[in-house]
Amino acid sequence: MLPPGLYRGAVAAQVIVLNGSSSSGKSGIARCLQAVLPDPWLAFGVDLLIQAMPVSAQTSAAGIQVAADGEVTIGPEFRMLEAAWIEGIAAMARAGARIIVDEVFLGGAASQQRWKDALGPLPVLWVGVRCDVAVAAGREIARGDRVAGMAASQAEVVHRGVAYDMQVDTTHTEALECARAIAARAQGGMAR
Amino acid sequence: MLPPGLYRGAVAAQVIVLNGSSSSGKSGIARCLQAVLPDPWLAFGVDLLIQAMPVSAQTSAAGIQVAADGEVTIGPEFRMLEAAWIEGIAAMARAGARIIVDEVFLGGAASQQRWKDALGPLPVLWVGVRCDVAVAAGREIARGDRVAGMAASQAEVVHRGVAYDMQVDTTHTEALECARAIAARAQGGMAR
Amino acid sequence: MLPPGLYRGAVAAQVIVLNGSSSSGKSGIARCLQAVLPDPWLAFGVDLLIQAMPVSAQTSAAGIQVAADGEVTIGPEFRMLEAAWIEGIAAMARAGARIIVDEVFLGGAASQQRWKDALGPLPVLWVGVRCDVAVAAGREIARGDRVAGMAASQAEVVHRGVAYDMQVDTTHTEALECARAIAARAQGGMAR
Amino acid sequence: MLPPGLYRGAVAAQVIVLNGSSSSGKSGIARCLQAVLPDPWLAFGVDLLIQAMPVSAQTSAAGIQVAADGEVTIGPEFRMLEAAWIEGIAAMARAGARIIVDEVFLGGAASQQRWKDALGPLPVLWVGVRCDVAVAAGREIARGDRVAGMAASQAEVVHRGVAYDMQVDTTHTEALECARAIAARAQGGMAR
Repeated sequence: MLPPGLYRGAVAAQVIVLNGSSSSGKSGIARCLQAVLPDPWLAFGVDLLIQAMPVSAQTSAAGIQVAADGEVTIGPEFRMLEAAWIEGIAAMARAGARIIVDEVFLGGAASQQRWKDALGPLPVLWVGVRCDVAVAAGREIARGDRVAGMAASQAEVVHRGVAYDMQVDTTHTEALECARAIAARAQGGMAR
Repeated sequence: MLPPGLYRGAVAAQVIVLNGSSSSGKSGIARCLQAVLPDPWLAFGVDLLIQAMPVSAQTSAAGIQVAADGEVTIGPEFRMLEAAWIEGIAAMARAGARIIVDEVFLGGAASQQRWKDALGPLPVLWVGVRCDVAVAAGREIARGDRVAGMAASQAEVVHRGVAYDMQVDTTHTEALECARAIAARAQGGMAR
Repeated sequence: MLPPGLYRGAVAAQVIVLNGSSSSGKSGIARCLQAVLPDPWLAFGVDLLIQAMPVSAQTSAAGIQVAADGEVTIGPEFRMLEAAWIEGIAAMARAGARIIVDEVFLGGAASQQRWKDALGPLPVLWVGVRCDVAVAAGREIARGDRVAGMAASQAEVVHRGVAYDMQVDTTHTEALECARAIAARAQGGMAR
Repeated sequence: MLPPGLYRGAVAAQVIVLNGSSSSGKSGIARCLQAVLPDPWLAFGVDLLIQAMPVSAQTSAAGIQVAADGEVTIGPEFRMLEAAWIEGIAAMARAGARIIVDEVFLGGAASQQRWKDALGPLPVLWVGVRCDVAVAAGREIARGDRVAGMAASQAEVVHRGVAYDMQVDTTHTEALECARAIAARAQGGMAR
């Protein structure tokens, strides 16, 4: 018997969850997935949730805060809005939309459990997005829109205790190539 | 007996729907609402849905297309993703989040009906955002990120047959002032 | 005998300098000017200079810093880069480009003098952009991308001792209307 | 006797020109250069010039136009504004600013000549930024904000006849690593 929400390859996925630290390359993979998958998929990242929040919650202890060293802390207000957001994304998938979730599991396994509870029996492909810490830190500088240190501070914690169907590593593999491998799995083309 | 989804002033609203044409000032009002309302509200505009779509759907007949004269046409792919999106926003509200929807009802009354069906018994405040066409067209130029003609082409059609709890007009009233009036109604402070 | 750099209406302007506090509406006027003026004009705001600076200079005492109350402080590194920037913009105008400068004269008359020294004998139209402080503070909230308090903290200081050819007030006048008045003056259509 | 504007390693560069096709990674290298170089450098890309142009020039035959296949065509209005822009950037450098130019030499050697004429005797480090076409095309998809085909259509033409002091290749080398090599040369640390 398989636990609900774990993808088993024979069935096409309805939801693809990409989890990885900041600057690991998730958003690029998500856009490539949208380009290579034959059907239209919606891509929702945590950045989009933050964008939907009040400006005050985007920089407060109750909401979300990024310290000078790049460490991110989450408050009760953020948690409450995020819980509703997760329910909403799950409802979009139940209503028939194919969805890519681009996430940073700051709580590791506990974060994954929140998504599992909401997604229930939907066929989900869980993907870990890895990247060498030094490389991610360099890409953080190249982007120029992230607080230095975010990549490093999240590198380990986001994968702690998380179970994946597959993992990709963007250190030496381009986003498009990662996306092609994920798309093959998501369409049920490869048995597990 | 009141129709479901119509707000009646005694109860605090859980969802505020702002409907108006492009460049009528909805997003500014939404941000001011988030600033003046005491609780944290999430604001979701149709721009955010478009941002979540594949790049190909953002400029195609199947997705959404903006003609050279500013007229927007919507295809079956967009409609399908939008239907799931609406279900998801409704689910976020049912999960406890307070939500501001910033919308352009290209289908007038039919667009409103889609939201009513999804929102069901949730207490919704329906707000029409009006703006003199010439003024909106001028603000379209001042923004610099919209195809000229969008405001004019949508000015009438988006309000056709739509029922509101209240309307605001940004022609001579600042976004913050509009937001204060809406917030008062949304909190149940004013009988209808 | 007129001081160099002061515009006298008979000659068409080569440079239009818009000076006003944050959220007074300069950028919207600049875009409208670009739309209504018959020739192509380049618009350069201080935001663009900041964007060209190293990320580190965008939030440091040596560069530029925005305090929690919205007060902006400028350090020696910023001043040095800004001085070169002003020389460069003046050189672009001397090379034949028509240029709109969208500026915040934090130093009042001293800031204007820096531009006058660089622009030399070029025909410049100096425009003060005014806005009621409370209204600008409201628009600051509606934009959602500025630290609250910037508009208020700059409202008076940026106009202190500055000499204008004309002034516009965005409190009750749309950006496009302001732009039309400025364009008429810039093209030499109105004697002073 | 060395031609003016060609960098000879003993002297520290005042201007670094990065030339490469769209999505070859120039902007990321520029931001990394700003982070690793000890002094503050301004970075100006052609994107910033386009941003300063009237909206009409951003999508017209007279200005700049991107065809459906990604090919970029430049009109007389763009050329005229660009010529003034180049003069202005050169003047900023003469005024003492250190400047990184992030460029796409659509005209190959002729484009370089325009910069050489303007920069005159200033110590310039000319850097070719290369990237395997297929990899650049994949990164174009991952970015999601470029017309598909731009990278491929520009891959060869931008380097045609251009003389470099050094070249970097982002196919297998991270932006930060490229930046470190460029910075070493720019500071005069390596003889040619």
